[in-house]
Amino acid sequence: MELLGTAAFAVSGAVTALKKQMDVFGVCIMGLTAACGGGVLRDVLLGRVPPAMFREPVYALTAVLASLVVFLLALRRAAFMKSHLFERVLLVSDALGLGVFTAVGVDAVMDAGYGGNVFFAVFLGVITGVGGGVLRDVLAGDRPYIFVKHIYACASLLGALLCCALWRAAGEAAMLLCLLAVFAVRVLAARYRWSLPKAPSA
Amino acid sequence: MELLGTAAFAVSGAVTALKKQMDVFGVCIMGLTAACGGGVLRDVLLGRVPPAMFREPVYALTAVLASLVVFLLALRRAAFMKSHLFERVLLVSDALGLGVFTAVGVDAVMDAGYGGNVFFAVFLGVITGVGGGVLRDVLAGDRPYIFVKHIYACASLLGALLCCALWRAAGEAAMLLCLLAVFAVRVLAARYRWSLPKAPSA
Amino acid sequence: MELLGTAAFAVSGAVTALKKQMDVFGVCIMGLTAACGGGVLRDVLLGRVPPAMFREPVYALTAVLASLVVFLLALRRAAFMKSHLFERVLLVSDALGLGVFTAVGVDAVMDAGYGGNVFFAVFLGVITGVGGGVLRDVLAGDRPYIFVKHIYACASLLGALLCCALWRAAGEAAMLLCLLAVFAVRVLAARYRWSLPKAPSA
Repeated sequence: MELLGTAAFAVSGAVTALKKQMDVFGVCIMGLTAACGGGVLRDVLLGRVPPAMFREPVYALTAVLASLVVFLLALRRAAFMKSHLFERVLLVSDALGLGVFTAVGVDAVMDAGYGGNVFFAVFLGVITGVGGGVLRDVLAGDRPYIFVKHIYACASLLGALLCCALWRAAGEAAMLLCLLAVFAVRVLAARYRWSLPKAPSA
Repeated sequence: MELLGTAAFAVSGAVTALKKQMDVFGVCIMGLTAACGGGVLRDVLLGRVPPAMFREPVYALTAVLASLVVFLLALRRAAFMKSHLFERVLLVSDALGLGVFTAVGVDAVMDAGYGGNVFFAVFLGVITGVGGGVLRDVLAGDRPYIFVKHIYACASLLGALLCCALWRAAGEAAMLLCLLAVFAVRVLAARYRWSLPKAPSA
Repeated sequence: MELLGTAAFAVSGAVTALKKQMDVFGVCIMGLTAACGGGVLRDVLLGRVPPAMFREPVYALTAVLASLVVFLLALRRAAFMKSHLFERVLLVSDALGLGVFTAVGVDAVMDAGYGGNVFFAVFLGVITGVGGGVLRDVLAGDRPYIFVKHIYACASLLGALLCCALWRAAGEAAMLLCLLAVFAVRVLAARYRWSLPKAPSA
């Protein structure tokens, strides 16, 4: 499941890189950053060094492979990349990645024995979920997605809270429910363009 | 005192977010980043993980509350936000935050037993002082404040040097003197537009 | 040799700062960031805290001195800074820094006892090599150099792979060969404008 989330986020990084006219190496770096950045932040904040991405190369390899697939698609099937269907694939895979990484982040805090500190667990779940995307956007020179997109970090926050609430009762099942909640909130928010209140231009 | 500095920096983050038309969630994230970013950097560089902000939720809660107050002010008292008085409140609170965090950063190095390494203490004091602001500006897509504002990191540097010089003789009082020195230099520099030499446009 | 790499990278940071019209303090901070940023990232990811730059002030002092020299040059010899010769000095010193830091990064992983994990050694070599430059560009508000310049991170990657391949057979000599390989690939790539494939504008 974590591999799926990794691939999904790598696709989002690779697509960002293509929009910025980066070359094939840049596409891979951006895919890697989006896919593994959140996990590296999580591990550094937890004191688990070297971070998991260096200890288990399978995640980085998955991210690079997914990025290369996107690059080849852009070369061979440029029309597909602009299609409405592709937009949807991107939204769904990104929402999936957000859900998976939020759940994984909460799980990592519990595993490390900080289960009593719900605040930490929720916070690190959100950082794991959105961190890769924030790093991706900073490197690309974009305003981070979480400040722009409807209910992005919010979906992750709701999922992390749910995961912590159900942890004792449900164990592993809490992670699955978290994933589903994040996915549902994120996709519905994008579909119906939910948004949070803003102040009138200051 | 650290809570005061946290609230002061959160206000600066929230105001930045409002200028960028972010929604209420973005305002809170930017407030949190500005208020807690410097401390997280300090703790990661010191090897104190999980960082204090996760172990003591009161700081993050203070930051979020301060950010929400700013958001409500922007909704209800938009005129006040544009007033000269508000600019001054912002300057004073930011200078206070800079002083508090610089002193706290030096103190953390001393506490961790690296007191013999003055270079490290001074450096980490400055990073704790300016780190949150730098992260805030990078996330907002602005050129970091420390490269733009007159004598900002410099004020922090002077305070950190003073704090280290007086540490053995004065202990806790050194932190207070550091705070006052940073505050005074920063406010005077802003008032009289002091600036450092630049090279003619290269 | 590491001091040479530090000075070389500091020059690149200082020049970036001058182009952005920063004052003398900004020039020093950018020099420091470019010169020491990669090493700090490496040490945090390896769990070696406080990072080497805080334990051995000589590197930071070298970086600040090199930055001040650049600043003085810009004041006194503005014409030289725009000359073709200076461009070349910059390219050569930057390529040298990239080579040195890549080799040092691989060496640090080996030293820390993770020699069996070639993936980690290569990855951290590249992060050490390009990290300072990426931080420099993010702070300056530029698109990171590694996404723009021909064969920059690629040169570092090739060198890191070579270094790992020769490590058992050659020991210290592997580091020297890595340095030479990175330097040669980077300079040749800049000279002959080698570039990697891009997708047609998406």
